[in-house]
Amino acid sequence: MSSIVPKNEGKLTARYASRAALMLPSEIRSLFAVASRPEIVSLAGGMPNLSALPMDVMASVVQKLVLENGTEALQYGSGQGHPKLREQICEIMALEGIRAKGDDIVVTTGSQQALDLITRIFIDPGDVILAEAPSYVGALGVFAQYQANVVHIAMDDKGLIPEALRDAIKTVREAKRKIKFIYLIPNFQNPSGVTMPASRRTEILEICRESEIFVVEDNPYGLLGFDGPTPNAMRSEDSENVIYLGSFSKTIAPGLRVGWALVPQAVKEKLVIANESSVLCPSNFAQLTISGYLANEPWRDQIASFCDLYRDRRDAMLESLDEFFPASATWTRPKGGFYVWVTLPPEIDTKVLVPRAIAAKVAYVPGTAFYADGFGSWQMRLSYCHPTPERIRQGVKALAGVVKEEIDRRSNETPKLTVR
Amino acid sequence: MSSIVPKNEGKLTARYASRAALMLPSEIRSLFAVASRPEIVSLAGGMPNLSALPMDVMASVVQKLVLENGTEALQYGSGQGHPKLREQICEIMALEGIRAKGDDIVVTTGSQQALDLITRIFIDPGDVILAEAPSYVGALGVFAQYQANVVHIAMDDKGLIPEALRDAIKTVREAKRKIKFIYLIPNFQNPSGVTMPASRRTEILEICRESEIFVVEDNPYGLLGFDGPTPNAMRSEDSENVIYLGSFSKTIAPGLRVGWALVPQAVKEKLVIANESSVLCPSNFAQLTISGYLANEPWRDQIASFCDLYRDRRDAMLESLDEFFPASATWTRPKGGFYVWVTLPPEIDTKVLVPRAIAAKVAYVPGTAFYADGFGSWQMRLSYCHPTPERIRQGVKALAGVVKEEIDRRSNETPKLTVR
Repeated sequence: MSSIVPKNEGKLTARYASRAALMLPSEIRSLFAVASRPEIVSLAGGMPNLSALPMDVMASVVQKLVLENGTEALQYGSGQGHPKLREQICEIMALEGIRAKGDDIVVTTGSQQALDLITRIFIDPGDVILAEAPSYVGALGVFAQYQANVVHIAMDDKGLIPEALRDAIKTVREAKRKIKFIYLIPNFQNPSGVTMPASRRTEILEICRESEIFVVEDNPYGLLGFDGPTPNAMRSEDSENVIYLGSFSKTIAPGLRVGWALVPQAVKEKLVIANESSVLCPSNFAQLTISGYLANEPWRDQIASFCDLYRDRRDAMLESLDEFFPASATWTRPKGGFYVWVTLPPEIDTKVLVPRAIAAKVAYVPGTAFYADGFGSWQMRLSYCHPTPERIRQGVKALAGVVKEEIDRRSNETPKLTVR
Repeated sequence: MSSIVPKNEGKLTARYASRAALMLPSEIRSLFAVASRPEIVSLAGGMPNLSALPMDVMASVVQKLVLENGTEALQYGSGQGHPKLREQICEIMALEGIRAKGDDIVVTTGSQQALDLITRIFIDPGDVILAEAPSYVGALGVFAQYQANVVHIAMDDKGLIPEALRDAIKTVREAKRKIKFIYLIPNFQNPSGVTMPASRRTEILEICRESEIFVVEDNPYGLLGFDGPTPNAMRSEDSENVIYLGSFSKTIAPGLRVGWALVPQAVKEKLVIANESSVLCPSNFAQLTISGYLANEPWRDQIASFCDLYRDRRDAMLESLDEFFPASATWTRPKGGFYVWVTLPPEIDTKVLVPRAIAAKVAYVPGTAFYADGFGSWQMRLSYCHPTPERIRQGVKALAGVVKEEIDRRSNETPKLTVR
């Protein structure tokens, strides 16, 4: 194909749907090509660390699956997902206090797809979705494609602030706009690393019920707590007003693309139809691989060893932030998951610093990626999941140098005023 | 959960998007639960027959993959799909005369998802999609969810009729409605089994170019021709105005959920973003399984043995239709793929006959499933892909009995007039 856009291609793109204008690459995306270079310490990605996954075990699980049950594993399956895996998912969710039955689960191609399809079912263009400030970049991308308006709600170190939620609901409704749901990541939130305590969960659920707003609880990291028990899932308190999203991407492996939604019965039918329309059925091959692994391997021990691995890395990151980062920066202290959220002095633009960080051989994601409204320019997400503790220290030290240099450079300038 | 719909669930469903009203179960879906009972000969499903797939080979491919390349296979991958598989897909498409490069391919979770995402990119509510009459039920489901209006174009035994296409374009445009694309299955069409000869393809492409309508060419069955060479893909003639969809579901296995779209460069960016939003990335595990299989196994021979298997079944079906079906019925004579399309006298309602057929231990799909407009009530799709030849004969014979009985019952009634 020549470098000149052919006549008909121009025409093709002129025929896009109006939503296509909102299909834009995320800020994270362009960064990843650079961040994956081996000389760069990537504190940017959220790729789980598979070094603790027993590949020999996994290899024998898949081999056995194909030999003994290949005609099922390699065939089309149910649009709702495999019944056996759905029962096993119930056992996993029981660890977080959820009582559910397999029939209320819809298996999806990663929990990302569950989020996409839930949004498809509920969102008309212009509807409002409430979300934490900041929130998961992949969710913001989905919400944009369905032409939703995201309203961010402020967080503190206990997660979403109830008073801020009440205020936002009031403001949005006074403007005669429809709130469809609130999207929350209560455990080890992406990107902030913050976990909502039990009492805060109860309070948020009460506000949502009163206001007739349902909760989409996204919980990919829930089992990856390092420092004692994690509060029960919000879904464990409210089976009618919460849609729960789960994933095997962080507890087993993301390459299988298996997640799920636990939904009220009335929503299930629509979700299965949306799933069928989107992919016909989730992969039997991937689902039965996970099912065989769960049935025959000590997966709780396996998750415990993932936790050990991530705890070491979290510790390395927090220790090196304490050691190297300037006093004017603050950051969260996650008790699980993958991420630390750093706030710099407001005059620092973390997007401007990216090329300098890359030159210093370290990558991170600038804060604006996690807001639908351009906020977060002096914040950044650092992930500790993938590099070794040694590389994390090296990366944080290098990044601290870049940050300090910018703070020094700015120190003689008049600080700009910030509103939020 | 009790049988009474809880208060909040009622409220939840009251908050659906307007498109959710169009998320309805297909006629095929309710049928499949019944058709899968072992005593029923299912001529209803489109499940490929995996008995010819070498499971020992597949088992060793996946075992080797996990042992030797597990950290890549089980990790997140590229939103566009794995570069190695995309190159291999080019080699496969070359068999149908397509010259393309891997960079123009986006791998999806089955070609169903490519169709979903292409529709997402191009369709605003109310836009018109042209399609064959009849057309693939799964495509009609996607088009409905994106609130497109489908206009069916008549076919003859050479596929879409050019004059009917010209007329439809004129009529739709006179009504000031926007045509976004035409959706076609040129090879062994689902459900009609009809294949478009090369000259007809050229003619249809010319009309589409003149009319500035692009073609979505869906080709899951293209390599499953039984009776000599299949015409080149429409995409081989026109790289700018055709979006081509391919799949491994019928040539390797559907349980892996791997398909692809070959698109003009300008569309590719949007498609990758839509893919990322929908599932983050297609499964590396599934893609590298296929890649390993293609690289190390004689897959062309494998496809040839699939063709032998399906040819025997096609022959069994056509022979038994000739032997048992009444003279007032007509049917197509497919040269490949999975389906025969039967037309009965217009007073026969094939939907009404379903329970009687089930009682006679045979299942099929009534014709109306394959139209967006309720047409096809005296037609039916028979698939020969899955049962043994012996079972096919048994099923066709039983079905012929049900049909004849209904024709006899109706023979004394006044025939109703039909328009189309």
